[in-house]
Amino acid sequence: MRRLTSLDSGFLFLEKRNQPLHVAFLTVLRPPPDAPQDFTRKMVERLCTYGVPLPPFNQRLERRLGAGYWVEDPEFDIHQHVVHLSLPQPGRIRDLLAMVSRMHASHLDRAYPLWRLYVIEGLEGGRIATYSKVHHAVADGVAGARLMLKSMSTDPEQVLPPTWALPPRGRRHATGLLSAPAGRLARLASGVRAGADSLPVIARELRQTWHESRSGHPDVVTGAAAPGCILNQPISASRRFFAQTYSQTRAKRAARALGCTVNDVVLAMCASALRQYLLGLGALPGRPLIAGVPLSTRRDHSESGNQIAFMLVNLGTHLPDPADRLALIRCSVDHNKQRFLRMKPAEILGYSVGLMAPGLMRMLAVQRPQSLAFNLVISNVPGQRSTLYWQGCEVEAMYPVSVVVDGMALNISLTSRADGLDFGLIACRRTLPQVLRLLEYLEMGLQEIEALVERTGA
Amino acid sequence: MRRLTSLDSGFLFLEKRNQPLHVAFLTVLRPPPDAPQDFTRKMVERLCTYGVPLPPFNQRLERRLGAGYWVEDPEFDIHQHVVHLSLPQPGRIRDLLAMVSRMHASHLDRAYPLWRLYVIEGLEGGRIATYSKVHHAVADGVAGARLMLKSMSTDPEQVLPPTWALPPRGRRHATGLLSAPAGRLARLASGVRAGADSLPVIARELRQTWHESRSGHPDVVTGAAAPGCILNQPISASRRFFAQTYSQTRAKRAARALGCTVNDVVLAMCASALRQYLLGLGALPGRPLIAGVPLSTRRDHSESGNQIAFMLVNLGTHLPDPADRLALIRCSVDHNKQRFLRMKPAEILGYSVGLMAPGLMRMLAVQRPQSLAFNLVISNVPGQRSTLYWQGCEVEAMYPVSVVVDGMALNISLTSRADGLDFGLIACRRTLPQVLRLLEYLEMGLQEIEALVERTGA
Repeated sequence: MRRLTSLDSGFLFLEKRNQPLHVAFLTVLRPPPDAPQDFTRKMVERLCTYGVPLPPFNQRLERRLGAGYWVEDPEFDIHQHVVHLSLPQPGRIRDLLAMVSRMHASHLDRAYPLWRLYVIEGLEGGRIATYSKVHHAVADGVAGARLMLKSMSTDPEQVLPPTWALPPRGRRHATGLLSAPAGRLARLASGVRAGADSLPVIARELRQTWHESRSGHPDVVTGAAAPGCILNQPISASRRFFAQTYSQTRAKRAARALGCTVNDVVLAMCASALRQYLLGLGALPGRPLIAGVPLSTRRDHSESGNQIAFMLVNLGTHLPDPADRLALIRCSVDHNKQRFLRMKPAEILGYSVGLMAPGLMRMLAVQRPQSLAFNLVISNVPGQRSTLYWQGCEVEAMYPVSVVVDGMALNISLTSRADGLDFGLIACRRTLPQVLRLLEYLEMGLQEIEALVERTGA
Repeated sequence: MRRLTSLDSGFLFLEKRNQPLHVAFLTVLRPPPDAPQDFTRKMVERLCTYGVPLPPFNQRLERRLGAGYWVEDPEFDIHQHVVHLSLPQPGRIRDLLAMVSRMHASHLDRAYPLWRLYVIEGLEGGRIATYSKVHHAVADGVAGARLMLKSMSTDPEQVLPPTWALPPRGRRHATGLLSAPAGRLARLASGVRAGADSLPVIARELRQTWHESRSGHPDVVTGAAAPGCILNQPISASRRFFAQTYSQTRAKRAARALGCTVNDVVLAMCASALRQYLLGLGALPGRPLIAGVPLSTRRDHSESGNQIAFMLVNLGTHLPDPADRLALIRCSVDHNKQRFLRMKPAEILGYSVGLMAPGLMRMLAVQRPQSLAFNLVISNVPGQRSTLYWQGCEVEAMYPVSVVVDGMALNISLTSRADGLDFGLIACRRTLPQVLRLLEYLEMGLQEIEALVERTGA
């Protein structure tokens, strides 16, 4: 039994009827060529034999004397958590995505440990899929990906136990603090304890950002610079999820030629796609969209405390020329990085919070504010370079299915994997029309960057 | 656009995270023998061509100036409401029931019209199933059944439009008041308007009931006579649904032989099953369980205003002898009916509310009260005598999937159909263990009644 952290409580408190706060991954799997007819059923049965999970997968919420705790569930029932589904034939990807959209809209039951794995057979090409979700109070996207990767192997013959039955790695995990939010919180706490040093640094950097922005420095994004946009509306309880894999090889080649990072290329792809999408709807704001981009500040190889910084990146969506947009994005990212390099992790967190406070306040107070901290989150979740196998199946793709909230009706997340950039786009079904178009526009965005390489002769 | 009635608002207000308030039906369908491979897909595609539904199926909630309204949805999207699913092979009934349990636990999105139809292929024996749900604020179980029956035909060749595309019958329907609750409310309103007559009658009957119960009259159930029981606990957000068809022919034969109604036999089956179930868990209360039984007070052939009475029936679960139990149930039912025969519908409603008020108050105020109005609802939804067809498929069964709420963790509902009594049992997944056993105990209950017929030589 352990007490909820204030971050855990926050995620539970912020969850609403129209706003479930779980994160998920959709994987597409190719069974071995000699897989028998009942391969998936046998797999589900095998997974269900791991009926005694380890923390946090065996813990459920309980309220005692007014305080919230994670307590071990004495009546843990694996069949509440592992579900076998099937797609109607011919098992089109669009049917899978519609299914994931519906599943992602439905809440986890707080009377049980807050996770569930769906194994879905019948996908075209003899493939199967999994959709696994976990409450944000238990793990965030990065922690979720790490947990999933742990149960995968580079050896097709090696079948590891499922995530919930794998002993946690490292000391931090042994105490049950598996999630990155918990890690962040621990860092925040240590930051606050060492606060005497941090506060002047944070104050100085905030002051400087403010000055730079007032003097018209184009790379600087303050915390309330994002324009009002159709992306920033109250949401319904229904979702639309779309997923597509883009070539990491192509993105890498372009990044190398242009002297930037793959992440810069990803942001440029998103900027181009968003501009095109909003133009098509006649809803492109005159000012550039601002993306909130979680940034790994990991300076060692530790497992915990990733991504405690949150960059505000100017996407330059007001600029018609892809070269101008990429340049602006690069400057904006570099400016963030320069600043963050000067700071310790706890200072970065304090700076991020202080910077975004005015815009966040406005978002909480007003239904459709005209200035916000950012318009959407674009999150690049670290994956694995080599081809991986799960339960003997090749992992063809691993798409993040993230969270949308009131005022933030679209989220673009991706994982990088072998040759793939696996994009998962989640949107409010009611608020945003024709989100499917973004998939095509992302590909067009990549082509624009490649054309740029040719144009510059790089 | 029409304003929400207070009953509509009540159902929406009482809906909670762990307590969605929609009612549903599960049907099992047998496609025609010559059905092609893609029969179900074609059916779903055909259903989706009916994309412009009639009220109330095209209406969604909207709040205007603080008041709630049903307004026509200008962006109605049939794909939000008609969903095609498939069971993993071999498509066992238990997998279907687990799927229905999960679907019934998930809320309808209030940003859309409050209904959804799932068409589920891949059930063993080449069959398909549908699970259709509608919010209780739109229709109750009886109205729901009536709506479904309207889209069915006795002719296998006749394919009628789906429910949402069928023009409403009669004047009341034309105004959009499709649901029985609305009908009830209309009756209540007219009763209140004619109140000068009703109130003395209600007061007299309540007074008499109270006197009879105090003088030890065994057939009389007052409004707070139900014992505390494990059925009456706070519930989780997860469900278990079980369904089984019992022979109506056998129930009818026994009823005729014993000179009682099929409904008496049904109540005796439930009483026997509940006694057996609670005995097995060591949780049988010393006092008899009380069932709340909606009763049709329809005295003509009108379509509206059904079931405005609610009987409190003593199930005699404390009695080991089935003959004693049946006798007690019959007396209890007859006593209710005698009383109701003396009253007008509005008076019956007033009487029911007045009678249950003390127990209901206690249920709302205390988490696990020791005396309640009733322990569970047992609802017999009128069906159809002849074999019916839907979209060219024979309707093999039509099971109600009703509602459980905090303090009422089990509901037994059934529809009568050709030869079948289609029982649907819905329970909180977490609160009540081994609900599956009830199915077997219901069959044993029917056998007990049949043994009674032999014993009495009737």
